[in-house]
Amino acid sequence: MEITKNNISDWLKNLQTHICNELSNADGLTEFTLESWTRDEGGGGITRILNEGNIIEKGGVLFSAVYGKAPDFLFKEKAHSELNTFDTDLQFYATGVSIVIHPKNPMVPIIHMNIRYFEMSNGTKWFGGGIDLTPHYVNEDDAQFFHTQLKNVCDTHHKNYYTEFKQQADDYFFIKHRNETRGIGGIFFDRLNSNEEMTFEQNFSFWQDVGLAFAPIYTELIKRNKNKSFTAENKQWQLLRRGRYVEFNLIYDKGTQFGLQTNGRVESILMSLPKFASWEYNFKPKLNSLEEKTLHLLVKNINWA
Amino acid sequence: MEITKNNISDWLKNLQTHICNELSNADGLTEFTLESWTRDEGGGGITRILNEGNIIEKGGVLFSAVYGKAPDFLFKEKAHSELNTFDTDLQFYATGVSIVIHPKNPMVPIIHMNIRYFEMSNGTKWFGGGIDLTPHYVNEDDAQFFHTQLKNVCDTHHKNYYTEFKQQADDYFFIKHRNETRGIGGIFFDRLNSNEEMTFEQNFSFWQDVGLAFAPIYTELIKRNKNKSFTAENKQWQLLRRGRYVEFNLIYDKGTQFGLQTNGRVESILMSLPKFASWEYNFKPKLNSLEEKTLHLLVKNINWA
Repeated sequence: MEITKNNISDWLKNLQTHICNELSNADGLTEFTLESWTRDEGGGGITRILNEGNIIEKGGVLFSAVYGKAPDFLFKEKAHSELNTFDTDLQFYATGVSIVIHPKNPMVPIIHMNIRYFEMSNGTKWFGGGIDLTPHYVNEDDAQFFHTQLKNVCDTHHKNYYTEFKQQADDYFFIKHRNETRGIGGIFFDRLNSNEEMTFEQNFSFWQDVGLAFAPIYTELIKRNKNKSFTAENKQWQLLRRGRYVEFNLIYDKGTQFGLQTNGRVESILMSLPKFASWEYNFKPKLNSLEEKTLHLLVKNINWA
Repeated sequence: MEITKNNISDWLKNLQTHICNELSNADGLTEFTLESWTRDEGGGGITRILNEGNIIEKGGVLFSAVYGKAPDFLFKEKAHSELNTFDTDLQFYATGVSIVIHPKNPMVPIIHMNIRYFEMSNGTKWFGGGIDLTPHYVNEDDAQFFHTQLKNVCDTHHKNYYTEFKQQADDYFFIKHRNETRGIGGIFFDRLNSNEEMTFEQNFSFWQDVGLAFAPIYTELIKRNKNKSFTAENKQWQLLRRGRYVEFNLIYDKGTQFGLQTNGRVESILMSLPKFASWEYNFKPKLNSLEEKTLHLLVKNINWA
């Protein structure tokens, strides 16, 4: 049976519900609110937010499926150089789930996932996405667990996927002006379609497994760290690291730029920003502190798995 | 006597000292730290920061004078279409003072000033700059005072400067994705050189008066508002407005983008960011609240003076 765009967005909508339930259970205090929105030009989404839970300070799990006439900027993209700019009837369909979770306890890491599917009426279709982790304090055991889980998902489908997609995450989640990675990376992939080794269906199956890996990985990381004690100093460091997260998302993140430039729904796009963040002039961690250790680990090409 | 680039940067350095002294006096608790830095390719600067004062939570007053081989991106700018890209000997000199002050009390406004001078070895030279105000709560009396002071400075030099430069501030300090201005504007001007009406010397004199207007204007605004009481709700609103300030500076501000893209001194460039900022999903002010009133006043083309 052929996989249609509607099958895919239905699957994503169910994934959103599944993940929200798992996160609410892990949080224990409260549930995600639910807001539906529609897009004038076609489609819409469901934005679910958890605010001030037990564990989660601010988190969003967003579903969207938008479609209509292909926007002008698509024709300018290098990746779409095959498009005929006079094809004014070209239609697109884009659907995905995006997640960012900012926990209260600085010992629990920030997590981000995005999985998306895109197709056009000319036959172009692909999957993209990834999961990456931003610990305020890098814990080597957790980093190893996180990357091993992702590697297992990848290895089930293709022997090169983990290596390739881990590299892409290292390269993408990099704060150039700070010369540091946003966190410990993860996997990131784009424009996965059929090729000589993998069919469209096989890549769909891989992509689904990435989406399904999110809840068990993050609820395990919550369980491991939620009861750890922390000081005011740890909390201030968390706010500074969140400041870097804001810098990355507003300056470099392609999804954020794309959304803001195309008049997307601002409140959904910027749900990724933390409730509180901080900047201090020329802050330097103390010698041999946990903060300094974390900075040393915010570099590319660490083999965590 | 001809005005040289060294005269201009000496004058700016003195202005920095003068403004820091006036702000320290107004704050009453503490003074600005002082850090000198040099640029490998030529020149350097003096970064002065006030952290956790009585009135000022985080403020920076920065001087810089940098020079050397004209960087490649200059040749790509539309404004420099006269440049010959093969002129590899072209030298530039850029000097300026930049200020951002984030006060503790939400009733005291955030202020920003930048005045800069630029010249090249091919004879190009110009002044640029401006002052703009970002109240967390717009107070009409203060807004009128602020704009009237700027209008007086402009009117002394040229009958059209206030109207023109007020418009440029409205257009520049605009957060497109929020469809709101950053604050109540002020004046903003660029590439002021000699023309049929104003000599280079006359524009230098105007530009100096803008720099000298900063301290009396802001210390008056501090005096008027520093003792006003505020609630936890006012404080939370201040953090949300600071979030918008962060959005403007990281997404739209040309100085920030220019600095980060050219490997400028990151800690000096990002001194403009507040100590604490906040984001809340889909925050809506209460009906007829002071917060709602402020939002209604964050629009272009209000005639404050």
